Formats: sequence, C-alpha cells, structure tokens
Amino acid sequence: MIEVKVLKVLFDFTTASAVVFLSDMEEKKTLPIWIGLFEAQAIQAALRGEVFSRPLTHDLLKNVIESSGGKLKHILIHKLEHNTYFSRIFVDRGGAIIDIDARPSDAICLALKSSAKIYVSREIYEKFEDILKMEEKMKQDFVSSFLKSIDKDDLKKA
Amino acid sequence: MIEVKVLKVLFDFTTASAVVFLSDMEEKKTLPIWIGLFEAQAIQAALRGEVFSRPLTHDLLKNVIESSGGKLKHILIHKLEHNTYFSRIFVDRGGAIIDIDARPSDAICLALKSSAKIYVSREIYEKFEDILKMEEKMKQDFVSSFLKSIDKDDLKKA
Repeated sequence: MIEVKVLKVLFDFTTASAVVFLSDMEEKKTLPIWIGLFEAQAIQAALRGEVFSRPLTHDLLKNVIESSGGKLKHILIHKLEHNTYFSRIFVDRGGAIIDIDARPSDAICLALKSSAKIYVSREIYEKFEDILKMEEKMKQDFVSSFLKSIDKDDLKKA
Repeated sequence: MIEVKVLKVLFDFTTASAVVFLSDMEEKKTLPIWIGLFEAQAIQAALRGEVFSRPLTHDLLKNVIESSGGKLKHILIHKLEHNTYFSRIFVDRGGAIIDIDARPSDAICLALKSSAKIYVSREIYEKFEDILKMEEKMKQDFVSSFLKSIDKDDLKKA
C-alpha cells in the first residue's frame, strides 16, 4: 500500500471527459485515470479548497459519514479489471473499520475533502509512469489533442 | 408535512441546467425546481431504476448510510430562502433519527434510490401550481423555449 497524491486534473470538453493524474509523493511517477467531467470538476474544486454555500454531493457524503460519528480513514485504489480501476473507502467508526466499494473519482474527491490519505496497491503502483515522459507527451500539443492521442486502453476508466 | 413525488425531469442543454417537477400524489399540482444537469441525470436514472456496474455517487451515499446500519427514513424540502430551496435527509440508525442538510437534488436522488418518501413543508406546498396550467405553458413551445420563458425567480435554485 503506497501513499500517492493528486497531481492535477485535465479536462477535455470535446469528449466530455477528464483525466485525474495521481503521482507518488516525490512527483516522479504518475498515473492518469479517466473520469467523468462532473467528478473532475468536484475534484478540482476540492483541490482548490473551494467552499460553496450549499453542500455539494461529496460534501453531503462527508457529512453523512461524520454525522454517525465516523471519519474517513483513507482510500485505496486496489485493482484494475476490464479497463476499470476499483477502489474502496475506509471509514473509522470508533475503532471499527468499515470499507465500502467506490469509484476512484468519488473516493479521491471524498479523500481531498476529508484530508484523508490516498493509497494505491502495489499492483496499481506498478502502472505509474515516469512523470517527465508523461509531460513530454503533453507538451506535444494542446490538451485536447493530447487526450485524444493517448491510447484509451492505457488510460482505463474509473 | 405533505408527501409528494417526482413527476418528471426536463433538460435544457443550451443553458446546461434542468428542472425537476415535483407533484402532489394525485398529480394535480406541481412545483418546478431548477437543478444542475448532473444531478438531473442522476435523478432520471434513479426514476428509471437504471443499474450501473459501478456505484454512482448517490449509490455510494446510499451504501455509506446502510453500511453503518442506517436507513434513509425520508427527505423533507422545508424552506425557500434567497431563491434557493433547502432540504434535509432523515437517517434512522436503530431508532435514533439524524437529519442532515442537503440540496433538494441530492436528497431527491437519494430518496428515489432508497425508496424513501419525499415530503415538503406546508410553506413549500403552498408554492405548488395547478398542473394543467403548467402543462399549458409547456405546450406553448419546445422544452428549451419553455425553460427560457419561465421567470427564473419563480423557479428558484436547488
């Protein structure tokens, strides 16, 4: 179980999708995960620490966990199956840990809002690529062209 | 506290927004509430009973409530303030009821997924309009024109 962080979120409005880039804590390696636009917007707002007057869906999720005396302990992106990343959220309720299946986009957003750690399994960490090589790919063209150029089988869906 | 139901959801992709129409149980009166596109899609999928291979955000919300032995009892849309509707979700945890602030769009989607009742306060119920008059408005033009024609101050935001 290796701790990672969210490096950035990139949007491709032409295909109505987005990519969240995870990285190791030293920002040497990265993993792009293809997610929905809405979830990407929620992650970006959480990254920026934006506060809204009304609770957004992931704020409600956090409030539901905390209203029962729970606390998000961490999240874990643990496997890749049929081109889809799987993750679980771990909730601590007075020492009892309950883990719940979640899409990585929801789990990541909730982790950012709860200041909880983001982990990946060894299996997933082995899929991280050199960050300089990834940036090189990105410099080749505009963001949308970059997103189109990536083999979607390599990106996988969340 | 009056029980209501979701009549339908209408989308206006030109303004990237949508309206959820609530009605009394006899479908005589209706209340339109302006919501976000994403939340509208989630409500429509819930209305249709669509099942996805991975948990969507509101499924995760439901799973989080149920994983702690809780159950959504009902939701209540209770007030309108500064053009915004406010609601609360009521969670039953072994007889103890906890209520949590939520936007109506999240609360409605969660209620549909949990087969929980949707209530409005007397104050909100007084804002419901005759459904035939509302349908007349709708017949005047295409959906997008209809949405544009409505005084947004009357619709209010969720």
